[in-house]
Amino acid sequence: MNKPWSIRASTMSRNTQNLIRNIVEKIQVKPNPNKNFIPLSIGDPTAFGNLTPPEELLQAVRNSLDENESRCYGLTNGALVARQAVAEYYAHQGQVSADDVILCNGCAQALDLAITVLAEPGQNILVPRPGYMLYRTIAEGLGIVIKHYNLLPEKNWEVDLKNLEDQIDDKTAALIVLNPSNPCGSVYTKEHLRDILRISAKHRLPIIADEIYEKFVIFDNKFTSLASISKDVPILVCSGLTKGFLVPGWRMGWLVIHDRQDIFSKDIRDGLRNLTGRLLGPNKLIQMALSKTLTTVPQSFFDSVMSFIESQAKLAYKELSHAPGLRPILPQGAMYMMIEIKMSMFPVFRDELEFIERMYSEQSILCIPGQCFDFPNFMRIVLTVPEHILREACARIQQFCRDHIMQENNIN
Amino acid sequence: MNKPWSIRASTMSRNTQNLIRNIVEKIQVKPNPNKNFIPLSIGDPTAFGNLTPPEELLQAVRNSLDENESRCYGLTNGALVARQAVAEYYAHQGQVSADDVILCNGCAQALDLAITVLAEPGQNILVPRPGYMLYRTIAEGLGIVIKHYNLLPEKNWEVDLKNLEDQIDDKTAALIVLNPSNPCGSVYTKEHLRDILRISAKHRLPIIADEIYEKFVIFDNKFTSLASISKDVPILVCSGLTKGFLVPGWRMGWLVIHDRQDIFSKDIRDGLRNLTGRLLGPNKLIQMALSKTLTTVPQSFFDSVMSFIESQAKLAYKELSHAPGLRPILPQGAMYMMIEIKMSMFPVFRDELEFIERMYSEQSILCIPGQCFDFPNFMRIVLTVPEHILREACARIQQFCRDHIMQENNIN
Repeated sequence: MNKPWSIRASTMSRNTQNLIRNIVEKIQVKPNPNKNFIPLSIGDPTAFGNLTPPEELLQAVRNSLDENESRCYGLTNGALVARQAVAEYYAHQGQVSADDVILCNGCAQALDLAITVLAEPGQNILVPRPGYMLYRTIAEGLGIVIKHYNLLPEKNWEVDLKNLEDQIDDKTAALIVLNPSNPCGSVYTKEHLRDILRISAKHRLPIIADEIYEKFVIFDNKFTSLASISKDVPILVCSGLTKGFLVPGWRMGWLVIHDRQDIFSKDIRDGLRNLTGRLLGPNKLIQMALSKTLTTVPQSFFDSVMSFIESQAKLAYKELSHAPGLRPILPQGAMYMMIEIKMSMFPVFRDELEFIERMYSEQSILCIPGQCFDFPNFMRIVLTVPEHILREACARIQQFCRDHIMQENNIN
Repeated sequence: MNKPWSIRASTMSRNTQNLIRNIVEKIQVKPNPNKNFIPLSIGDPTAFGNLTPPEELLQAVRNSLDENESRCYGLTNGALVARQAVAEYYAHQGQVSADDVILCNGCAQALDLAITVLAEPGQNILVPRPGYMLYRTIAEGLGIVIKHYNLLPEKNWEVDLKNLEDQIDDKTAALIVLNPSNPCGSVYTKEHLRDILRISAKHRLPIIADEIYEKFVIFDNKFTSLASISKDVPILVCSGLTKGFLVPGWRMGWLVIHDRQDIFSKDIRDGLRNLTGRLLGPNKLIQMALSKTLTTVPQSFFDSVMSFIESQAKLAYKELSHAPGLRPILPQGAMYMMIEIKMSMFPVFRDELEFIERMYSEQSILCIPGQCFDFPNFMRIVLTVPEHILREACARIQQFCRDHIMQENNIN
């Protein structure tokens, strides 16, 4: 008699979790069949078809399609000509060469490489709260511990520096800084970034700078790359075409090593190169279009997208400021807005998840609950939906708040 | 005073090694400047530009480029329409649905997912010797142990079944079967595959079937997918567009779950899905071209490529049979030929690596030494270089053998 079959999924595969999916997939209610569904939940600027990539990029890929070079294997860290193009693109942030660039399957792989090379299982990395959950997905799968440092909503989501420093212990391997921020929409000043660098230098902590929203700055704010102002702290910058060039599905990301004092040395560079040997590099068709794309897409393309997001931010901020019980926080960049839900004014709901579920079932609006970012009592909306849809969504959110706010507070 | 900086690369990044690169990059000699360099080392059918992808695929990508859907994020396991297309493509191998398909960043990611979900650090997986080295790169990075089972060159590289069974212990998590084989060029009969399945079933070992060369069968051989004949053994099939459709750089692979008796159950499926959350899926532009491609590329496209490889195999086999001290083994598929180097007839060389280095410096021909596949005294050549180049390469290899064979054996 043979033993019975018994095949278990590995610990790593069980520990690789996506908090947003876990929470959102558990929502049991259905949207209101009498109202069209508006997903303010999807962090994809191309989801609605109103924002499209620059024609220069599409043409560069069309051309690349006809070249044999775009079909064959490249180096596992990316084709030289493509890495050179990225290095030149970032020349203004400090001298980097093609050797400092690794092309990745989206910014996600860049983050995966950076976290995996710097941290051992049992060590910890510091991530912002609220912040993008992929860091946790990647780290916990590998047995790397996540420790949160707080962001301060009342100070435009700046880092609580005291709290950040308190999290550092002798098992801390790296600090992740996400700027501009998902979900906060914050953009840090040069001064604030210098404060972060000071703490990092003091504790000898390398930084993983997630700058995938580098193009997304609105109003009078200005993006500063951490790498451009770091004198000594070594930085792995993670970014890509994904958001700025409006092609998230193309998975073209990169990691750039900024290390003026050669602190990473050969060890980390070899480790990164080794890790690229698992996947053998990202899509070469897009790699071969990089040089043309990065040199020809005009600034006016980004200006036009930002002008749209800025006007959407104004609209949503204004409309939701009139929703009783809500406190929207005006973003400075990225493509999101965080909204505080004053839960004490909605005693009918146990928590913000129940608020969001009920809004989904009554108004057919879906937002991401703050607990998906380890930050309860808030919700995140995306600003990139078409204007008339955003306007309609805000009206329905207002209505929902009026319908459910505690009676004595209901002054509308 | 601050402590000094000290940043070490993680154990995983240090243990993720590429044996071919490690050995080939250590070759210090230069090619002969008087002879053009012929790399018979590169396992890329598109490297020389003589083999090009089907026009139907190029056109499908051109069309996909104009669709918004090809730019936005897909599901992390791949867009439904693309997974459906792959499921239908494999319908003849046994009923699978879109839920059984995961789209991957090349076959490499499919292998990564399969190995990662099935094995824990400290467990082992069985891999063929000689065999493709990526299994080792992926597994050893994760602390999973590689155990080899032998292939028998004198029996067309069939598995030494006794030896295979001897390797299995209570820490064995999976068996990898590579058919058609890189580097051997073997294609297994249905009977031999049934023998492998029998061992696998007896020991309750799931199989990872690397079938990336499924289209590559020459002479009168026939490819049989393991999944098509398995009654109970659950199989994760890894394949993709890479080799068959001549677009290795596009990194479009897939993993197909064949599990007629529902032995993997939800646990493995959830684990695989979780793991896709690290990279967020492969390039959507190519995903959206899959349906059209898989239904319209005619059989004549593959026939024409195989006819070329078959005639190249004949040519190389015939020419190298005349090289003193070599014993080429006629391949049945894939795009490689293994050649035994009778080292006792070349006492001037310490091992086959030195043979290959010297051939590189004298004849400007580079082959992959057997030790890159844990199989010394052999070398691998690729058959997909243009015919006149292969002919020239064979002549130079012959010349090299005549120049260095032990005098008393030199009957040429």
